[in-house]
Amino acid sequence: MSAAPAPVGRAGERYRVLVANRGEIAVRIVRACQELGFETVVVHSNVDRDGLAVRLADRAVCIGPADVTRSYRSIETIVTVAEAAGCDAIHPGYGFLAENAAFARAIAEAGLTFVGPSAEAIDTMGDKIAAREAAEKLEVPVVPGATLTDATPEQALAAAAAVGFPVLLKAAAGGGGKGIRPVLRREDFVDQYLEASAEALAVFGSGEMYVERYVQAARHVEVQVFGDGAGGVVVLGERDCSVQRRHQKLVEESPSPVLSPETRTALTEAARALTSGINYSGAGTVEFLYDMDSREFFFIEMNTRIQVEHPVTEVVHGVDLVAAQLWFAATGEVPITEPASQLPAAHAIECRINAEDPRTFMPRPGTITELDLPGGIGVRIDTHCTAGYTISPYYDSMIAKVIAWGPTRDVAIARMSRALQELRIDGPTTTAPLHLGVLAHPDFAGSRHTTTWLETTDLVGEPR
Amino acid sequence: MSAAPAPVGRAGERYRVLVANRGEIAVRIVRACQELGFETVVVHSNVDRDGLAVRLADRAVCIGPADVTRSYRSIETIVTVAEAAGCDAIHPGYGFLAENAAFARAIAEAGLTFVGPSAEAIDTMGDKIAAREAAEKLEVPVVPGATLTDATPEQALAAAAAVGFPVLLKAAAGGGGKGIRPVLRREDFVDQYLEASAEALAVFGSGEMYVERYVQAARHVEVQVFGDGAGGVVVLGERDCSVQRRHQKLVEESPSPVLSPETRTALTEAARALTSGINYSGAGTVEFLYDMDSREFFFIEMNTRIQVEHPVTEVVHGVDLVAAQLWFAATGEVPITEPASQLPAAHAIECRINAEDPRTFMPRPGTITELDLPGGIGVRIDTHCTAGYTISPYYDSMIAKVIAWGPTRDVAIARMSRALQELRIDGPTTTAPLHLGVLAHPDFAGSRHTTTWLETTDLVGEPR
Repeated sequence: MSAAPAPVGRAGERYRVLVANRGEIAVRIVRACQELGFETVVVHSNVDRDGLAVRLADRAVCIGPADVTRSYRSIETIVTVAEAAGCDAIHPGYGFLAENAAFARAIAEAGLTFVGPSAEAIDTMGDKIAAREAAEKLEVPVVPGATLTDATPEQALAAAAAVGFPVLLKAAAGGGGKGIRPVLRREDFVDQYLEASAEALAVFGSGEMYVERYVQAARHVEVQVFGDGAGGVVVLGERDCSVQRRHQKLVEESPSPVLSPETRTALTEAARALTSGINYSGAGTVEFLYDMDSREFFFIEMNTRIQVEHPVTEVVHGVDLVAAQLWFAATGEVPITEPASQLPAAHAIECRINAEDPRTFMPRPGTITELDLPGGIGVRIDTHCTAGYTISPYYDSMIAKVIAWGPTRDVAIARMSRALQELRIDGPTTTAPLHLGVLAHPDFAGSRHTTTWLETTDLVGEPR
Repeated sequence: MSAAPAPVGRAGERYRVLVANRGEIAVRIVRACQELGFETVVVHSNVDRDGLAVRLADRAVCIGPADVTRSYRSIETIVTVAEAAGCDAIHPGYGFLAENAAFARAIAEAGLTFVGPSAEAIDTMGDKIAAREAAEKLEVPVVPGATLTDATPEQALAAAAAVGFPVLLKAAAGGGGKGIRPVLRREDFVDQYLEASAEALAVFGSGEMYVERYVQAARHVEVQVFGDGAGGVVVLGERDCSVQRRHQKLVEESPSPVLSPETRTALTEAARALTSGINYSGAGTVEFLYDMDSREFFFIEMNTRIQVEHPVTEVVHGVDLVAAQLWFAATGEVPITEPASQLPAAHAIECRINAEDPRTFMPRPGTITELDLPGGIGVRIDTHCTAGYTISPYYDSMIAKVIAWGPTRDVAIARMSRALQELRIDGPTTTAPLHLGVLAHPDFAGSRHTTTWLETTDLVGEPR
């Protein structure tokens, strides 16, 4: 990337990027800009004025109070500051406005560059039905399902059989997890269907049902892509993020330890087909659910932004995804090439260390009085925290992402365990002990965990 | 490495390693042991009792006062502690007893394993004449030279011409840099020879002279090797350590930016020949002087230990040299394989940050009151320092090794600059500004620097 001359900004000087985020991802973007020779303007709320990103940036602008609707989610404020500060581009990070099509449009209308895909891509992938339709059209597998409208028991059973057992029966008018029942065996289906649709009629006023494949042993596997906006795609392998708590990822790794070579190829090619088919531009992630029992995978959604867990891909494939986003935004050139193999020669793991009670996951904000971060071989730390920094109750409670890698998964696990044992955070309670519990557990070592594993496994001695 | 079961120690339990060093390399060894599942016993002087290695180790034993002859250099004390603590092996790190053949012998006599080569290899390579003879016998190029005993001017000129101009004339009885004069041109030789030998006779009582090739534009290039003790050698490319001050390396990188592919092959094969020819075992470094003018290289010496700058090799070749040393000591197996190419696909740089005045290089020991270490993509920190730690006047003044890497040298330089700008060390004066000056200098960017460059270049605004 640096071999080419740095692009010139519209002020005729250095290319200037507004960082529309906070925390570790703001630091991540500032660092990437500095390495590219780009200038940085960080916007921040008044509780974030002592943040590391503010300290490292060329310029910092306070844009409002802790309330995110009046600061980090305020499209008008951020675009106005970007124009006033002579910025060329805006990087949204993740969260906040990162997947907000109106933000992307407002930036374009101001004549600036949004470091992300087109507003249309955000719209399509942000709409679950549109995303599923796009995937189906491009022959990317989705979770099999069918709507049962006024179906006779025989018709319903035929539809369920076509979906494949086990299935979930969902009240079409339900929502929020209500009116869902699993049916594990074909012989139980008709009774369950009659009961469930009667119940749905009574509760929701409609007996219409939806039947969907029930993936009991699910892994979350996602593919990192980078599109050129004209159908060209660089695919950078997959990440496995199956250690979750209420759909929040806690531990991520690359490559996935459970994919066969054939499945890896099929999965990454499906991600390529989707990304190419919608002429996606920039960094994105195509998320799949992988069924450990049937060994099938199904498209869930596409995230049209950089993700928290992007470093594991960077480490194993030797790329800088954030620098690639910025360079692509500034020049239109994709500065990374596809690896020779989707299966890298290294293995990386990321643990998200939060200021939370490791038993209850309740946030535990507070001031970090002492902070000794681990270092040495095969360890990377992405953090915005320094000794004396106060984790605010207003935002997410992440303290640091610890990334460890090595030639094998065993080495990566041993290195991560070593690193987390070295980590010393005085002040807030953290989830580090939970992560040590995960790393030491035979289910994790043997990659037998699913996305519900953490919630049903006692790792720190108390109910969660 | 971790795929195989961890070796069992002589106590029938975990393999146990005594760490006979201090500072960052003691931390490095403890970390490697932890990742391998080995137990650690760290010995330390009474001023080092609050060190990070002491904190991280399974056990720590105070062995004496700050005076190194009574602690880190005391063979008897260290071997006795190792036996008493039930250790299986002793890792010497670098410096202190790392290249002391008597230490290696005492360890072997106690029935323990020295993590290093045989005492014979240490002896041979520790003796400059024996090392040069070993290299010559194995057809490894050495700096051309000849002794001129009672030589007529014509004989002396013929010898000098065979050595090749420019040459250095040295009084054979001289030493410590005295009685050396450069002769750049053939036509000046006879006059200079007669003058110099008359002067040598007057000053040293002997007119005997030594004539040696004068390498004016010298780079320090060294090859990392790992021998199996039976002639098998894994070669892991080269490091370029040409930014030096009074023969102390300050900045190291891998690969060397000045070698042609042909020279790289010749250099690494010469290192292999020497390592194989002496049946060397374990990690070692074969050091060469590379002449930028003639494009020749000459063997200088072999270091029979791990080196300070080993991380740049680890980063670009994806190996763990210290873990390899330990595993080899414990099992006799070399756990690393040779890379497909001696030219890696990445570039790494290491800066040694010392508690020294960057202008005078005078040590500036003291307490580190605040310490914010840089992190993020492509940055590794090897340090024994934490906030509150006191750099002692008794030992070397290193605070941290900062290693930065990326796909190209330009990215590595940009990343290192970014990292050093983030680095915040309150308390002692450090050499970080000097390193930023090196990184920003066009001579360094263009790889035009030689081993004398730093001493003749003004980087921090004051004479050194």
